[in-house]
Amino acid sequence: MLVTVGDNRFHPLWLRDNCPCRECRHESGQRLLDTRSIPDDLTVVSVEGATVTFSDGHASTFDPDWLDAQSHPAERRRRRLWGAELTDELPVGRYDEVVDGGEALATWLAYVDELGFAILVGGPTEPGTVTRVAELFGYVRETNYGRLFDVRTVVSPTNLAYTGLGLGAHTDNPYREPTPTLQLLHCLASSAEGGENTVVDGFRVAGALTAVERELLAGHPIRFRYADAATELEAETPVLSVGADGEVCTVHYNTRSAQPFRLPESVIGPYYAAYQRFGRLLESPEYKLSFKLEPGDLFAVDNLRVLHGRAAYAPSGGERHLQGCYADRDALRSTLAVLSR
Amino acid sequence: MLVTVGDNRFHPLWLRDNCPCRECRHESGQRLLDTRSIPDDLTVVSVEGATVTFSDGHASTFDPDWLDAQSHPAERRRRRLWGAELTDELPVGRYDEVVDGGEALATWLAYVDELGFAILVGGPTEPGTVTRVAELFGYVRETNYGRLFDVRTVVSPTNLAYTGLGLGAHTDNPYREPTPTLQLLHCLASSAEGGENTVVDGFRVAGALTAVERELLAGHPIRFRYADAATELEAETPVLSVGADGEVCTVHYNTRSAQPFRLPESVIGPYYAAYQRFGRLLESPEYKLSFKLEPGDLFAVDNLRVLHGRAAYAPSGGERHLQGCYADRDALRSTLAVLSR
Repeated sequence: MLVTVGDNRFHPLWLRDNCPCRECRHESGQRLLDTRSIPDDLTVVSVEGATVTFSDGHASTFDPDWLDAQSHPAERRRRRLWGAELTDELPVGRYDEVVDGGEALATWLAYVDELGFAILVGGPTEPGTVTRVAELFGYVRETNYGRLFDVRTVVSPTNLAYTGLGLGAHTDNPYREPTPTLQLLHCLASSAEGGENTVVDGFRVAGALTAVERELLAGHPIRFRYADAATELEAETPVLSVGADGEVCTVHYNTRSAQPFRLPESVIGPYYAAYQRFGRLLESPEYKLSFKLEPGDLFAVDNLRVLHGRAAYAPSGGERHLQGCYADRDALRSTLAVLSR
Repeated sequence: MLVTVGDNRFHPLWLRDNCPCRECRHESGQRLLDTRSIPDDLTVVSVEGATVTFSDGHASTFDPDWLDAQSHPAERRRRRLWGAELTDELPVGRYDEVVDGGEALATWLAYVDELGFAILVGGPTEPGTVTRVAELFGYVRETNYGRLFDVRTVVSPTNLAYTGLGLGAHTDNPYREPTPTLQLLHCLASSAEGGENTVVDGFRVAGALTAVERELLAGHPIRFRYADAATELEAETPVLSVGADGEVCTVHYNTRSAQPFRLPESVIGPYYAAYQRFGRLLESPEYKLSFKLEPGDLFAVDNLRVLHGRAAYAPSGGERHLQGCYADRDALRSTLAVLSR
């Protein structure tokens, strides 16, 4: 059933589907041939070199190197897991270099792509800087919090982020669908005592769980919710998701917005045990990084992988003012790929 | 291990985690108590009515009705699968009523939520109308195509959407991560012959596959890609995703941007058989709806569920001009929930 072309074997439908001729593939690279139109009983009539003739009369001439490459495993996205040892080599870019684009921007974006976070130092303290940094590589994801939002102590807060309370490691907005895949936080003022930022690699910590714990956290979606006078957001998602390759590919963890678990009686005990172990490992000094943003500094996290938190601060002992915004990974990776051409 | 309160049994950690007192839960509804801080060996010391006292000394008084409701299955999102029979009751709203908000807007948004698409008729033909409609309920997802994009025939197109070619049923932008969950298309001109829009319920069609076909399409992620001079987007996702409840919850199908499948030799044949069956069922008159947008009309689709397409049109025989934009479901559902309060 498979046909040998060059050194490798291919399915007739696969070959026909991937014909590179101008009739089958638009110069933009998109497929013109609608795969659905290929007859089920298509066969290969002849192979000469890298030219394949099919029973529908069509002949396709492939680039032999391209054909050979298709038989090897696709390149995986680079991803480097980390723990507290990364303190010695924090992924830091300089604002004045990164805003100029080119290699400095590519390096900074690659930190976010590979490590799930990056810090940018020495920027302005001007309001709105955070969205301008997002626009260096992508697009702001506007939400009910606005294009950007202020994080500081307010009277009658609708969100704990707007108090002086410490916040344990969490991902943002798990009640949103789709969850924003990137978050940026920019420091405008930080004279208050405390309020250090923390980050932890959720994929690394998930790897420290037992297989049974991972399966519990991946197998039972839980609900997250946020509501105020103008908003009512609710989404159901498991704490961990595992891809077809068996690797953890998303983390949603937020004890503030998690709704009461609705789990079978036999599952609730083991589930809490796994949930508590994961939550506590996220706070373990073995995995957690801590740094204090100076005015003008900023950091970006991959919000489906790296959890962030902050130490408590005394709202009366000085000022702490951050601005945040959301954005998405697709544009970041696109910009990184284009800069790397 | 479980404790009886009222008519139901609860886990001690669950009860403590969901204490409604002002010390444990902020008035915003967010949990103040960090679940991680609850001791593993917590027990219930006494239960009196709906007041539970724990071994950590804390006492929680629950609303008995709330507690009882937690033991019943959570309400599921309404979702109504459909086929071609929906032609007789197309989900149509009137622009002048829907823009006024209130019940007409709620009804229109509920169509999108339950059926995965809705049509809006009688709107203006002014450019930019499409984003103003998105802003009635949510936020535009800006991409490399802009806040909005024009769909008409152009010279040297980088995308087949910008030609007069017919387009089979597809979801948009599967090469993006996260995939936009909503798409809106607004008609500014439609004097060309042909170019009818089509929609099909991907969840309904997935239900017509065999279990083996569904497992093949859900079990093997494929790659989608789009590239031009300034952009390089690539994402890997299966054609179908199945949630923890066993229901299909996302569809990604686009024969134009699908990259050559990299599948084991033993899988490629059965995979193509399932892929072709799904693709052809999507075009079957049993499932597909067709309608022609008049100038001023618009439609919205849930881009992870309802596939859209268009009949070919003769670019020389008149004008066809649409404007499109992307948005997301979370804000739509939030607006619908707030309007329904």
